[in-house]
Amino acid sequence: VRAAVWLDGRLVPLRRARVSVFDRGFLQGDGVYETIRAYRGRPFRLVEHLARLRASARAVGIALPGGVAPLGRAVAAVLRRLGGAADARVRITVTRGNAGPDPAPRRDPRPTRVVTAAPYTPPSPAEYARGVPAVVTRIRRNDRRAQDPAIKATSLLNTLLALREARRAGAREAILLAPDGRLAEAASANLFFVRGGTLHTPALESGILAGVTRALVLDLARRLGIPVREGRYRPTALLGADEAFVTASTIEILPLSSVGRRRFPPIRPVTRALREAYRVTVADELGV
Amino acid sequence: VRAAVWLDGRLVPLRRARVSVFDRGFLQGDGVYETIRAYRGRPFRLVEHLARLRASARAVGIALPGGVAPLGRAVAAVLRRLGGAADARVRITVTRGNAGPDPAPRRDPRPTRVVTAAPYTPPSPAEYARGVPAVVTRIRRNDRRAQDPAIKATSLLNTLLALREARRAGAREAILLAPDGRLAEAASANLFFVRGGTLHTPALESGILAGVTRALVLDLARRLGIPVREGRYRPTALLGADEAFVTASTIEILPLSSVGRRRFPPIRPVTRALREAYRVTVADELGV
Repeated sequence: VRAAVWLDGRLVPLRRARVSVFDRGFLQGDGVYETIRAYRGRPFRLVEHLARLRASARAVGIALPGGVAPLGRAVAAVLRRLGGAADARVRITVTRGNAGPDPAPRRDPRPTRVVTAAPYTPPSPAEYARGVPAVVTRIRRNDRRAQDPAIKATSLLNTLLALREARRAGAREAILLAPDGRLAEAASANLFFVRGGTLHTPALESGILAGVTRALVLDLARRLGIPVREGRYRPTALLGADEAFVTASTIEILPLSSVGRRRFPPIRPVTRALREAYRVTVADELGV
Repeated sequence: VRAAVWLDGRLVPLRRARVSVFDRGFLQGDGVYETIRAYRGRPFRLVEHLARLRASARAVGIALPGGVAPLGRAVAAVLRRLGGAADARVRITVTRGNAGPDPAPRRDPRPTRVVTAAPYTPPSPAEYARGVPAVVTRIRRNDRRAQDPAIKATSLLNTLLALREARRAGAREAILLAPDGRLAEAASANLFFVRGGTLHTPALESGILAGVTRALVLDLARRLGIPVREGRYRPTALLGADEAFVTASTIEILPLSSVGRRRFPPIRPVTRALREAYRVTVADELGV
């Protein structure tokens, strides 16, 4: 199966997995979402993802019919439909819904809810071993006062422009600065670096997404006795690091081989220790 | 007819006016658009709107199949289908298209192109006479370095959040400041004010949309001998104005009755002169 889709209450075949051209998600990027990785049919940290979805929906004023519980059941349903064996990427999307052609409806329509699962191919072992190249993009992260990056919204233009800029430069990951020029995060991942044995990551106050994987990595570091600091960093702090990596639910902990012209050494003891602890946590929680 | 829809090459009935849940417009707000007003079936300033659409598409790297000419023909087709008599609102949306479940496809898919027309009810004569209330929102316009407001993109979250804030405050129009605290524009309209007989509007360098109606209003003011200034203004400049109005293709020139607690006088000679010149231009260009 190429993908499984749950749409507004039931599983639908791909050819019927369609929404109106008047859906506010399509017309205005007026929606929120989550991306979740599943291992052998089991979603990792589903509770945390659903909690963040609830927070994003509240921040933009989208009321979730029945709360997040039906979405949790939908995740299970699409994963069953996809078949349990492979790694999968689950996406939950909730938009303001279809109000028809009226650009300023008096009341919000019923939200559109979509949950999809598709086979996921993680970065290759070579990419995990060597790391992947990144650049600091000219495109900056949204100002928190304009479009708070803490809201995981489908209005993703600045992320998309940053990724395009990175790909044009031959890089895989795009690192965005905050409006004040401090490090923020990667295009769809959080950013970490290691310097003198201490693990550093931009503070939530930088205007970034509160990553589910980010929180777990910070927790694992503390449990491993690795000193941790969250702060506001200049790009030079990253360029002077011993190790650097990005985190997201799909890619887990992915080392950076370079940021622009700065190449990082191939020995990454802290990154490796965290990666191992992460894999152990996944196996332990999911029994896979 | 409630609405007419052209989708990827042909007119379709409303029930078939649907796009895949994997469309990048739906998943990521990865699209550009235009809104055009039609009078008795004839679109106003279509050439200017299509030129801006071309510029927006280029800025985000969406290739328009056949350029904008097929979209111009689609505008005519949906207006014919709608029937020529009423005022109508035409919307052109072009998204990156449907690449399926793959979150990082190697190549861009074929863009999705949607053109819709629906009957449009303008603000009432009373609203034009009295003006409508506005507030300066806490939500700010996107930073030009993050998501340039000059790109008319479907990633509209900050606009939507500003409008929600304004509606909660009982206002109709939301005025957004630029990241530096200077006046930018309204949620989906440009902002003008009159002080001592001079017409002022935030400069394009403020990080705003280059409005088609804005350009026409500036042109009309010059032809009417009204002194014009484009600049970077503090909100206090607006609060100290004699007249204020917002402009957009649909609402044309709509006076503001108030901005927050500041109420504007009901006598608006400059606004009225510009409104009359605008109506004459529409009638003259379209023969309606």
